[in-house]
Amino acid sequence: MLGLMQDQPLLISQLIEFAARNHGDAEIVSRRVEGDLHRYTYRDAARRARQVAHALDRLGLGFSDRVATLAWNGYRHFELYFGISGSGRVIHTINPRLIPEQIAWIANHAEDQVLCFDATFLPIVKAIWAKCTTVRHWVLLGDADKLPHDTGIPGLRSYEEWIGNEPVEYAWPAFDERSAAALCYTSGTTGNPKGALYSHRSTVLHAYGAALPDSVNLSARDSVLPVVPMFHVNAWGIPYSAAMTGAKLVFPGAALDGKSVYELIEAEGVTLSAGVPTVWLGLLNHVAQHGLKFSTMNRTVIGGSACPPAMIRSFKLQYEVTVLHGWGMTEMSPLGTVCNLKLPQLELGLEEQLAVMAKQGRSIFGVDMRIVDPDGKELPWDGVSSGDLHVRGPWIISSYFKGEGGNPLIDGWFPTGDVATIDPQGFLQITDRSKDVIKSGGEWISSIDVENIAMAHPAVAMAACISVPHPKWDERPLLVVMKKPGAEVTRDELLAFYEGRIAKWQIPDDVAFVDSIPLGATGKMQKMKLREQFRGYQLPAA
Amino acid sequence: MLGLMQDQPLLISQLIEFAARNHGDAEIVSRRVEGDLHRYTYRDAARRARQVAHALDRLGLGFSDRVATLAWNGYRHFELYFGISGSGRVIHTINPRLIPEQIAWIANHAEDQVLCFDATFLPIVKAIWAKCTTVRHWVLLGDADKLPHDTGIPGLRSYEEWIGNEPVEYAWPAFDERSAAALCYTSGTTGNPKGALYSHRSTVLHAYGAALPDSVNLSARDSVLPVVPMFHVNAWGIPYSAAMTGAKLVFPGAALDGKSVYELIEAEGVTLSAGVPTVWLGLLNHVAQHGLKFSTMNRTVIGGSACPPAMIRSFKLQYEVTVLHGWGMTEMSPLGTVCNLKLPQLELGLEEQLAVMAKQGRSIFGVDMRIVDPDGKELPWDGVSSGDLHVRGPWIISSYFKGEGGNPLIDGWFPTGDVATIDPQGFLQITDRSKDVIKSGGEWISSIDVENIAMAHPAVAMAACISVPHPKWDERPLLVVMKKPGAEVTRDELLAFYEGRIAKWQIPDDVAFVDSIPLGATGKMQKMKLREQFRGYQLPAA
Repeated sequence: MLGLMQDQPLLISQLIEFAARNHGDAEIVSRRVEGDLHRYTYRDAARRARQVAHALDRLGLGFSDRVATLAWNGYRHFELYFGISGSGRVIHTINPRLIPEQIAWIANHAEDQVLCFDATFLPIVKAIWAKCTTVRHWVLLGDADKLPHDTGIPGLRSYEEWIGNEPVEYAWPAFDERSAAALCYTSGTTGNPKGALYSHRSTVLHAYGAALPDSVNLSARDSVLPVVPMFHVNAWGIPYSAAMTGAKLVFPGAALDGKSVYELIEAEGVTLSAGVPTVWLGLLNHVAQHGLKFSTMNRTVIGGSACPPAMIRSFKLQYEVTVLHGWGMTEMSPLGTVCNLKLPQLELGLEEQLAVMAKQGRSIFGVDMRIVDPDGKELPWDGVSSGDLHVRGPWIISSYFKGEGGNPLIDGWFPTGDVATIDPQGFLQITDRSKDVIKSGGEWISSIDVENIAMAHPAVAMAACISVPHPKWDERPLLVVMKKPGAEVTRDELLAFYEGRIAKWQIPDDVAFVDSIPLGATGKMQKMKLREQFRGYQLPAA
Repeated sequence: MLGLMQDQPLLISQLIEFAARNHGDAEIVSRRVEGDLHRYTYRDAARRARQVAHALDRLGLGFSDRVATLAWNGYRHFELYFGISGSGRVIHTINPRLIPEQIAWIANHAEDQVLCFDATFLPIVKAIWAKCTTVRHWVLLGDADKLPHDTGIPGLRSYEEWIGNEPVEYAWPAFDERSAAALCYTSGTTGNPKGALYSHRSTVLHAYGAALPDSVNLSARDSVLPVVPMFHVNAWGIPYSAAMTGAKLVFPGAALDGKSVYELIEAEGVTLSAGVPTVWLGLLNHVAQHGLKFSTMNRTVIGGSACPPAMIRSFKLQYEVTVLHGWGMTEMSPLGTVCNLKLPQLELGLEEQLAVMAKQGRSIFGVDMRIVDPDGKELPWDGVSSGDLHVRGPWIISSYFKGEGGNPLIDGWFPTGDVATIDPQGFLQITDRSKDVIKSGGEWISSIDVENIAMAHPAVAMAACISVPHPKWDERPLLVVMKKPGAEVTRDELLAFYEGRIAKWQIPDDVAFVDSIPLGATGKMQKMKLREQFRGYQLPAA
């Protein structure tokens, strides 16, 4: 027997209409590519999202056709999120930090029909348009009178001209909530990028999960700054959760240096920000150099890669900002866990609390987790047993776009490629990527632990721990270090820094100083490249 | 094209398993009918919910068969919530405050197969069992050795004996998320009670919505006391949202007097409570009489009927407890709106904030609202235009159980029977029930406004405003007042109290003092009974 409740599909169009109706006056502030600040409201955004929907109809785009973006975090990108998905098309957010060949490959693989891009990325589009065989329409996200001439891009038009004369009312279509809504490619370490194809259902459920008090905790009393890009797993879903809750949105555009981000936070009363650890390095440096404080920001979500405990401590003790350490993946929409204390932990001392907050946190309802040994046997949640992390739930992929890579699931679970422990309270701690694990004499060494200790040293800007072959122990850890500008530290000083902080056999065998550590398109350290760079490296003790 | 996300139905069994796995140690504390406090954890609750599922299988109950409860808020009731729905049956929570004939009528209408009841309600069951033609199994929620003899109830058994030997593991079935999960009857003012039949989907979505920061705001750092009964719209969904978030649960059982509730709040570190206004009168009286404070409780959800502003003020100013004023209906699972301030309102003075908090608040994502005039034309959200309130969304009914009352929807919207304004910020204010509206000389008078003013008078314990016929104005308001014990106030003093607080023509024509005001089974004032009682009442000025 079915229940007798209204059979309403969960649709992305409902999010923007809800925001327009219930939070019509709430602000959306964007730093534009042009440099100025643009301000408007959810009511305005909804109106223009409807114009986008009309404009797509006028181009004759069919249901589920892909519309790509190459854009910073800003109001026009926000409108595209809702106009494209809401009208039944699929928004394909492309990471502009990929090399042009990859961008063209992805656009062709996705069969994008339209590509909308910020002026910043005109050089990329000039370089690739001829290779993009499916794109029929090129839209520059700007005013008509700023449209550059002689770009060579066929039929290039401006966004404002494209949507400007469309009606501001639109009858959003209703359809199966499992319909495709957004497409995001993730660059695996091997092979071509693979696409995660989100649905309306998964996106709305994820928006609920992400807004919960023990997740990102979003309300109409927040002013939220997503530094994490809208081309990177939909800025962790914040645009959707913000519309769901009426939070004020502050978009940083292309200005991601410490000074710009700090000034935006202060000027717009930001209460919550979100980004990967590397972006906060610049912010913390700026704030420390100028003796500044945060007057409104009380928490920041950090994920994408493990946040060094030193950063969590610094935010908390020096700036009274709580780091919400999170973990997720493109394949997970992306949120899996966020670290928030539990009731009994409120009684703990600050040091013990900081130790909990260094973990990646607890799963959100909607995400089931398990850790398994190499034979697939489930391991206990004892905080010690370390195994391959598997997840399942309604906002986790079942397969990749076009079936690339075959069926990724194991007994219905998605294997994350992360290695983790889970403690009895349900707090996840990522100890490694399965392919980054260092196995020395039959024992695992957590490269993340080794890196976090190095990051706590005042002279270290960034540190990566990789394995190098060893005749006796099979593998031993090598620490690759980028120093802070002007800071000095020797190999021996750094190795001595590990004494008492980690078991002796886990201390790296050597330190290699480098001028820079290669970062991927999403700001993660590219250990694969480092391993290549240090292939054949001779450890001193070997 | 469909998205490529895992196709997992939303099921109530997932809530309890999530809690057991991620919040296994979080506490559930219950004051039992026996008088003592019972303590255990979500892990224990899940184990026993699985035993309930096995016990129902053993009885041969089919999918969607109804299992009724007549029970206070407590751990056994909590287990039944998950064991019954999780295994594919429908939990039918019966309000024990209904008269026995109504209870029997409802049990027969629902075709309940099993009825589980607290010892308190043995007299009711004795009175009705012979009339309940479909119930085949009677279960007393207690220990085997406490089972009374010679009750006459055929095959009566104890809950502990019933589930005690069942396995503690259970393979929860997966099925269509729109399947029926819970049944709750609402007693309309006319005709027989009608059943709202919730689904797994509606229940899980409502649990997400209710836990949001701008709703009840539930996290694993909360200790929550639902005073609102589990037989009254599933205690506003708190059992489900608590399992979703790992909040500690504190169940008050039958002890709802001010002293018992206060002591439970203090002993169990309650941070959040929830109930109808009438239950808080007793609590506030107890606290005031003994000069007490709340050491942990920082907020309380009040709904079910409009919360007098004087109570909101008293909680805030005297006890630093924020009232989260809410509105909903049995037909809405029940949450529609909760009152939380928005970002710009944080700048307002306390008095202006209290004025906002006196409204019923903003809708949760999942609930669309509109107000319409008598012709069905939508009215503006200007805070002044008052009209019939309509709602729609995935946790709102489409029809009543067995189609009773026909199709209740108007163009897909559920007419709530409430009359309301909505202001430009989206804050709903219920001004009346459509059948309680007083229309004087063509102008509406809000009976709720009139009552709230009376409630602010120190001598008034409860006040009801009803209309009486008037030869010139058609209708005029009569104020029916129950004084506080030992307090004195005259008719003229009370009427003078309205001067300057309301327009002259809205002031009641007369005051009638009564010893008690009739309350319905859910604690709401029964104005229909009052209107009968005062039929033919002669207003002095008439």
